Amino acid sequence: MDRQDLSRIGAFSDGVMAVAITLLVLNIEAPSVSNDDLPDAIVDLIPSLAAYVLSFALVGRYWVIHHGLFATFVRFDGVLLALNLTFLMLIALVPFATNLIDDYSTVPIAAAVFGAILGSAALVHWLMTAHALRAGLVHEKLRADAVPLGSTVALGFAMVCFLSVPVAFLSPTVAWFMWASLLVLRYPLRRVARWVER
Amino acid sequence: MDRQDLSRIGAFSDGVMAVAITLLVLNIEAPSVSNDDLPDAIVDLIPSLAAYVLSFALVGRYWVIHHGLFATFVRFDGVLLALNLTFLMLIALVPFATNLIDDYSTVPIAAAVFGAILGSAALVHWLMTAHALRAGLVHEKLRADAVPLGSTVALGFAMVCFLSVPVAFLSPTVAWFMWASLLVLRYPLRRVARWVER
Amino acid sequence: MDRQDLSRIGAFSDGVMAVAITLLVLNIEAPSVSNDDLPDAIVDLIPSLAAYVLSFALVGRYWVIHHGLFATFVRFDGVLLALNLTFLMLIALVPFATNLIDDYSTVPIAAAVFGAILGSAALVHWLMTAHALRAGLVHEKLRADAVPLGSTVALGFAMVCFLSVPVAFLSPTVAWFMWASLLVLRYPLRRVARWVER
Amino acid sequence: MDRQDLSRIGAFSDGVMAVAITLLVLNIEAPSVSNDDLPDAIVDLIPSLAAYVLSFALVGRYWVIHHGLFATFVRFDGVLLALNLTFLMLIALVPFATNLIDDYSTVPIAAAVFGAILGSAALVHWLMTAHALRAGLVHEKLRADAVPLGSTVALGFAMVCFLSVPVAFLSPTVAWFMWASLLVLRYPLRRVARWVER
Repeated sequence: MDRQDLSRIGAFSDGVMAVAITLLVLNIEAPSVSNDDLPDAIVDLIPSLAAYVLSFALVGRYWVIHHGLFATFVRFDGVLLALNLTFLMLIALVPFATNLIDDYSTVPIAAAVFGAILGSAALVHWLMTAHALRAGLVHEKLRADAVPLGSTVALGFAMVCFLSVPVAFLSPTVAWFMWASLLVLRYPLRRVARWVER
Repeated sequence: MDRQDLSRIGAFSDGVMAVAITLLVLNIEAPSVSNDDLPDAIVDLIPSLAAYVLSFALVGRYWVIHHGLFATFVRFDGVLLALNLTFLMLIALVPFATNLIDDYSTVPIAAAVFGAILGSAALVHWLMTAHALRAGLVHEKLRADAVPLGSTVALGFAMVCFLSVPVAFLSPTVAWFMWASLLVLRYPLRRVARWVER
Repeated sequence: MDRQDLSRIGAFSDGVMAVAITLLVLNIEAPSVSNDDLPDAIVDLIPSLAAYVLSFALVGRYWVIHHGLFATFVRFDGVLLALNLTFLMLIALVPFATNLIDDYSTVPIAAAVFGAILGSAALVHWLMTAHALRAGLVHEKLRADAVPLGSTVALGFAMVCFLSVPVAFLSPTVAWFMWASLLVLRYPLRRVARWVER
Repeated sequence: MDRQDLSRIGAFSDGVMAVAITLLVLNIEAPSVSNDDLPDAIVDLIPSLAAYVLSFALVGRYWVIHHGLFATFVRFDGVLLALNLTFLMLIALVPFATNLIDDYSTVPIAAAVFGAILGSAALVHWLMTAHALRAGLVHEKLRADAVPLGSTVALGFAMVCFLSVPVAFLSPTVAWFMWASLLVLRYPLRRVARWVER
């Protein structure tokens, strides 16, 4: 019974993340210009497209870790449900935050909001993992799969996001590079973290 | 066969609730202001964000009880299907109702509509549970899980929502507190109800 | 393998119908009026709400028959996939058609478009059932469940919708009653059809 | 465990494709005209409806091949997850691209963007199949089902889309015919490809 319940929580979470990730496209609006101006208008959409790709990849990354964590569960409790809903609440805000960094790409506060939402989602995911490991929700044989998601490196992911908040006030562009780096740098980051944890 | 049918009803319900809960974000629009005015405009979004959090948590709460009820079912009938569709019809109205209480936060009728929709959804869920228990749709061994969802405390949830309708005409703010209390106070409420039922 | 494939087709269909049914709420827009005019503006929303309830119930009805049909399948083929996509394409048009009959409630062509879309969806569903029964996609033991969905009564459902197209040009209101009657009258209709088929 | 993980990847992909395909309807807006002008306004919607049908059928076609490919998998790896997310990122752009070719049906660049997005999605799907076959993600007994999706004919699908990009600059209408032909001509195309591969 629990297994089926678990799969329904996973399915609902997948649903929310699938809708949120697809709503990102609403940020890229077809331009309203004369036919002659369309080529220029499409070139002007490139920053919106970049924001779309960044957010899609980040939400996709969150989906991958969420899916990896839930695959290790043997049961769940009320705290996990509450944390999971909080996680989804933050993920569902990403389309809004993406609009913001796209419309105000040079304004620090826009980047700060984006970084804070991403960081909070990563932190809640880390808390979810830590709680699951402590409360015995993780299958004994799959602890090795769950442990990295509750480790220093996973917390590091959240920390980089939170660090992008003050950085955004110095330079929103550097904040963008920090978010993009989260997608690329996680393998080196993991190696550093392993070294730190020893 | 029935088990699979049941899981498809659950999946469809999850789909509707996942879309409805994610559409809540469309209420928080990226502001259209000059770059200099963005910090103030973002501060002005805080009430919208509060409405988002409240509605997300409430729909999440409805999802949790719906999911808990369906986990106890061994089969379904036409009445259940009709009640379930009515429940989903009310849940899918929550993004509209959230827009309303956000755009007209001081207007009684807005809060009254929100309270009436939430109350109706809770009442239909209670009816669904009562019908399922009476019609033998609940697995014998899982009756103990379903019974609380058809009890006085569950009806109390609906009653608090309906009570917020007249209260809204005295003070919309008090109505807001009543809805928020539904998220926090359900443990004490449950204890009171247990005491009443004895 | 086929069983799992089948369940993924069902899941995709559920997804499309769940999104389409939830998008119906976008038709009910929060009014943009002064606080004092809100009560009147909400009363003015009642026709929109009626259109929402009607379309939600109709799409819900289509979901119920689709779900009943798919529960009888033992395998599928390319024709079924194509018919199913056509069915979903028509269902996904319902939010548009609902907007239309709501914005132009007294204009015959709006009601005619609504009736034609609903009728086409019902007809495609009937064709899907007929094809499944002929091509041996239905589980032997479940033929009794599938047969009614390919019967005269199911075709009657489509026919009432198509009949509402010319009727709309006489009176859109009568067309509305015909659609609403589809939700209420299917039990008597079934009895009539059984009598006809003898 | 892997099987369940796989089904969750399928479910998430289904979710994204189901939302993307249903969002296509937002491109067909109910007209804002006087009651008398509605018949003409609805006739004017026919090109939008044609774009809707084309895109719905194309995304539906992508769903069918994606679903066929995933049914052959016995496990997955990180590369597959990344390619799958890239595929979904491109599919989720189709509602935007459909808006574009509908609003600017005679402008070459609009058709070029549409063709490039479709072609990229087909190419990524082909890469996904090729990777899966090489990395041993495909069930031994189901290789025969996966091989065609990684073959010259599947690549031909992508090539026709990419070819429509330069063709669009000569005539957007010819590009439309090329896309529509993808839906109809795949059986002859398959026969040609089989002949080429010999």
